[in-house]
Amino acid sequence: MIAVLRIGHRPDRDKRITTHVALVARAFGAEKMFVDTKDRKLEETIRSVCGRFGGDFTIKTGVSAKTILTQWTGFVVHLTMYGEKLDKSLKKIKKNNDVLVVVGAEKVPAFLYEASDVNIAVGNQPHSEVAALAVFLDRLTEGKWLEEKFKGKLMIVPCSRGKKVVSGKRKKGENL
Amino acid sequence: MIAVLRIGHRPDRDKRITTHVALVARAFGAEKMFVDTKDRKLEETIRSVCGRFGGDFTIKTGVSAKTILTQWTGFVVHLTMYGEKLDKSLKKIKKNNDVLVVVGAEKVPAFLYEASDVNIAVGNQPHSEVAALAVFLDRLTEGKWLEEKFKGKLMIVPCSRGKKVVSGKRKKGENL
Repeated sequence: MIAVLRIGHRPDRDKRITTHVALVARAFGAEKMFVDTKDRKLEETIRSVCGRFGGDFTIKTGVSAKTILTQWTGFVVHLTMYGEKLDKSLKKIKKNNDVLVVVGAEKVPAFLYEASDVNIAVGNQPHSEVAALAVFLDRLTEGKWLEEKFKGKLMIVPCSRGKKVVSGKRKKGENL
Repeated sequence: MIAVLRIGHRPDRDKRITTHVALVARAFGAEKMFVDTKDRKLEETIRSVCGRFGGDFTIKTGVSAKTILTQWTGFVVHLTMYGEKLDKSLKKIKKNNDVLVVVGAEKVPAFLYEASDVNIAVGNQPHSEVAALAVFLDRLTEGKWLEEKFKGKLMIVPCSRGKKVVSGKRKKGENL
């Protein structure tokens, strides 16, 4: 099971970035997301996407990061541009069934570097926690997230031009 | 040469997302970014990052998307969750030296689907243009962006715990 912990979330400033972090977590194969600051609007937005597009992804805001880190019995990966090279620990991380991926906002508390099993840099340049999470999960799942079927009310059919969206109520055995 | 065109940018609402798009473009190997709406603050932010962390990345805001698309002589890839599967056209795209990657904000004008050589979905689930751009460029460059050396005033040294930042003024032949 993959879960994502977002720390340092400031609802006013980070609402769109944290929303993107959560949507990436869901689309790229995570099952759960925890956010340290309470944010009902964020929860509603993500649950609305899950309601329309399917999947069992859950989000919980207003949690204590320290409690989550203490209670998590699996592996903890902190994504930071200061960390080790991405490929260095990937093999080791893949051996774990349960991986908690921690992504911070601009500043993260110092304890996080020690509380994590590995500190990983998805490139040592400043870019985006959204991008770092996406590339990390893409590598971790070896691209398998792309094949995941979400059985939602709405389903998008890959299309070379324009948009094709169908109802998720499919006939038995029918694939999109 | 890889360039990125961001369309539908609304400075107030999209400032952070477009900043992340631009930082991903720079870090993941693009040389240029065009943004359709004038936004001096965004330009300043990105130029400040380039000034500190190095590289030749340029950003121009307040451009006409239609003009850029008309003048671009290379391949045009539009990233959209409605598009074809990511892997389907990757081989074809890689044959081109010059690739313009178009990423829209929430709604994109219909002409874009026709003006692009391919419409590509980095997964057919709603997530993030920041993530879509990152994963697309990661695949396009086959991860080579991770090896790119930016000769900046500040250089981050990969590190298993904490932060290590050095001055980019290195001795001849010294590698980080």
